[in-house]
Amino acid sequence: MPYAGLLDKVRMQALASNSGGKRLRALLALDAYDAAADSLGHGQSASAPSAATPPATHNREAMLDLACALEIYQTSALIHDDIIDDSDLRRGAPSAHKALEFGGDERLGGGLALMLGNLLATASVRIADAALAQLHSPGTGAQVFLDMQRAVSIGQVLDLSAETIPLDDPQRLAQASLEVFRWKTASYTAIAPLELGFLAAGLDPAGAHESALQIGEPLGISFQLADDLIDVDANGHSSGKPLGGDIREGKHTVLLADALQRADAQQRERLLAIYGASTRSGSDVAEVIRLFASTGAVAQSRRRISALLRKSSAAIEKNTLLSRAAKTLVRSACARMMPAYDA
Amino acid sequence: MPYAGLLDKVRMQALASNSGGKRLRALLALDAYDAAADSLGHGQSASAPSAATPPATHNREAMLDLACALEIYQTSALIHDDIIDDSDLRRGAPSAHKALEFGGDERLGGGLALMLGNLLATASVRIADAALAQLHSPGTGAQVFLDMQRAVSIGQVLDLSAETIPLDDPQRLAQASLEVFRWKTASYTAIAPLELGFLAAGLDPAGAHESALQIGEPLGISFQLADDLIDVDANGHSSGKPLGGDIREGKHTVLLADALQRADAQQRERLLAIYGASTRSGSDVAEVIRLFASTGAVAQSRRRISALLRKSSAAIEKNTLLSRAAKTLVRSACARMMPAYDA
Repeated sequence: MPYAGLLDKVRMQALASNSGGKRLRALLALDAYDAAADSLGHGQSASAPSAATPPATHNREAMLDLACALEIYQTSALIHDDIIDDSDLRRGAPSAHKALEFGGDERLGGGLALMLGNLLATASVRIADAALAQLHSPGTGAQVFLDMQRAVSIGQVLDLSAETIPLDDPQRLAQASLEVFRWKTASYTAIAPLELGFLAAGLDPAGAHESALQIGEPLGISFQLADDLIDVDANGHSSGKPLGGDIREGKHTVLLADALQRADAQQRERLLAIYGASTRSGSDVAEVIRLFASTGAVAQSRRRISALLRKSSAAIEKNTLLSRAAKTLVRSACARMMPAYDA
Repeated sequence: MPYAGLLDKVRMQALASNSGGKRLRALLALDAYDAAADSLGHGQSASAPSAATPPATHNREAMLDLACALEIYQTSALIHDDIIDDSDLRRGAPSAHKALEFGGDERLGGGLALMLGNLLATASVRIADAALAQLHSPGTGAQVFLDMQRAVSIGQVLDLSAETIPLDDPQRLAQASLEVFRWKTASYTAIAPLELGFLAAGLDPAGAHESALQIGEPLGISFQLADDLIDVDANGHSSGKPLGGDIREGKHTVLLADALQRADAQQRERLLAIYGASTRSGSDVAEVIRLFASTGAVAQSRRRISALLRKSSAAIEKNTLLSRAAKTLVRSACARMMPAYDA
C-alpha cells in the first residue's frame, strides 16, 4: 500500500459511500423550504408550487447546499453505523471499513473509516454553516444542524443499550426500540430536514421547530418501521443488504418484540432458542421471517406505520403557518418517503 | 446492564475522559487572547499582562468557553485515537472503549466510545459557536474550529498511512512522521489555539492566521517530538501510559526512523528483527530504548526540538502585530508547553 495513495483512497471512498442513496432527506428539506417560502409569500405564486416550477425565492442555491449537507452527514452516520454493526455491505457495495481494509487489515480499515466518518461530519457542518449564512436564521440553523448530529449519536447509544434488554421483557424492548427510532432516525430523516427548510425560508424559529416536530417525528418513526419491514419482506427488498440481515445479526427490533409478545408458547420457545444462539443459519432466518408473519408482528408494524402516518398527516392539516399550496407540497414530500403506504 | 443506565454511564465517561489533562491548549488560547487584546489596546495596560491581572477586555468569559471547547474536542480526539490504537490506558485510567465494555463486550465498548467521541466533537463545535458569537470574527472563528477538526482527522489518516511505510525507507518514514505531527498534533495543540485567541480578541483574520501558523507550527511539532521522547525516557515519564508503549505497539515513529538511519549494520539488524516480529517483549522494549540512545536518535530528536523552538521564538520576535508585552506573554505561554526545554 503506497503511503501517498491512502489519503486519496479515503477521499474516493467518501464518494463511493455517498453514492446510491435516494436523497430523500435532501428532497424533503428542499420541499420544506419551497413550502415555507410559498406560505410567507416569497413564492412565484400562492398556488401549486411544484418541482418543475420552484418558487424563485431568496436563495435556492444556498438551500441546495444545505440539503446536500444533510446527505453528507447521513453518509458519515452510515459509515460509523456499519463499523459498530460490523456490516460488510451498504447500498449493495462494500461498507467503508471493508473497502478500506486493503488486503484484510481490519484495524486499518476500521481506523480509516472512523476518520472518514469524522471528516464527512465536519464537512457537513462546514457546508451547512456556509449555506445558512446566506439564508434566514443562520445562527439557529447551525444549532439545529448540530443538535441533529447530537440526536443521532444519542440514538446510536440507545440502540446499543436496547441490545442489552433481555428478551423476557418484550414490552420494554418495543418501547426502547421506538425510542431509538425517535433519536436515531426521525431526528435526521424527517425532523431536521423539515425544520432547516422551514427556518431557511424565513419561518420563525419556534414555529419552524414545532411544525417540524409535529409532522416529522411520526413520519420519521414510521420510516424506520417500514425499513425494518423491508428486511423481512422479499417483495419490497431493495436496500442493498441481504434479506433478513437484522435477524442474522440477532438484532433486537420492534418486530422481534412484537412477535415475542404475540407468540404462543411454542413460537416463543423457537424465537428465544434462535435468538439465544451465538449465530443464526439461513434456515433460522427463514423460520424467524415466517414467525414474524404468523404471530401477526408484521401486521402490527403495518398498523403502527398507518397510525403514525395519519398523525403526521393530521399535523400538516392543522398547521397554521403553512399555506394551502404549501400543505399539498409537504404532504407529497412526506408521501415520497413512504411509497408503499397511503396515509 | 440496565438499559436506562447506559446513556448515563456514557455521560459520566465524558467527565472521566476529560479529567487529568494539563489544559495546555486552553491556557495557550487564553494567553493568545490576552496578548492580542493588549496589542490592540484593549488591555488594562500596555505593559506586563499576566495571568494574575488579565486585561479586562471584551468578553473573557466567552473566551474561557472557547478555550474549554478546545479541551472538549481534544478529549473527543483522544477517545477515537485510543479506539484506533486499541490502547487500554489513557492518563493513567482505562481508556473510554475499555471503561465502556461492561464485562468484556468489546463491540459495545467500541461502539459507545465511538459515539462518545462524536458527541464531544459535536458539543465542542456547539460551545465554540456560542462563545464565538460574543467575540470578534465569529464566522471565521467557526471555520477555524472546524478546519482544526478536519486537520486532526487527516492527520490520523496520515498516521495510519505512515504505519504502512516499509522500514527499509527510514528517510521517507521520518518525513512522513513529521508530516503527521503537523496535521495531527500541531493543528489543534498550537496553531488553532493561537489563531482562535488572536481572532477572538480582534486581530484581523489574515494576520491572526499567519501569526498562529508561524509561531504554532514549529511549537506544535516540537511538542509531539518531546511527547515521543517521554515514551522512551523514564525520568520524564508522567503520561499515564506505560513506558515504551509506542515501541511495544511497533509504532513507526520519528525516533525509529532516525535510529534506523543512524544505526550500524548490527544495530539495524536488531531493530528490524524486533519491529518485524508480531509482538515485542519487555526486554525487546528495553533493548530498543537503549538503541534509540546509542544510535544518537534521542539526541537528534532533542536537536530537532531545539531548532523548532528557535524557529517559533523567532516568529514571535519578528511578529509585527503583537506588542512588546504581548510577545512576552506568548513566549511564556509557549515555554509552558515545553517545560523541559529552553528555546
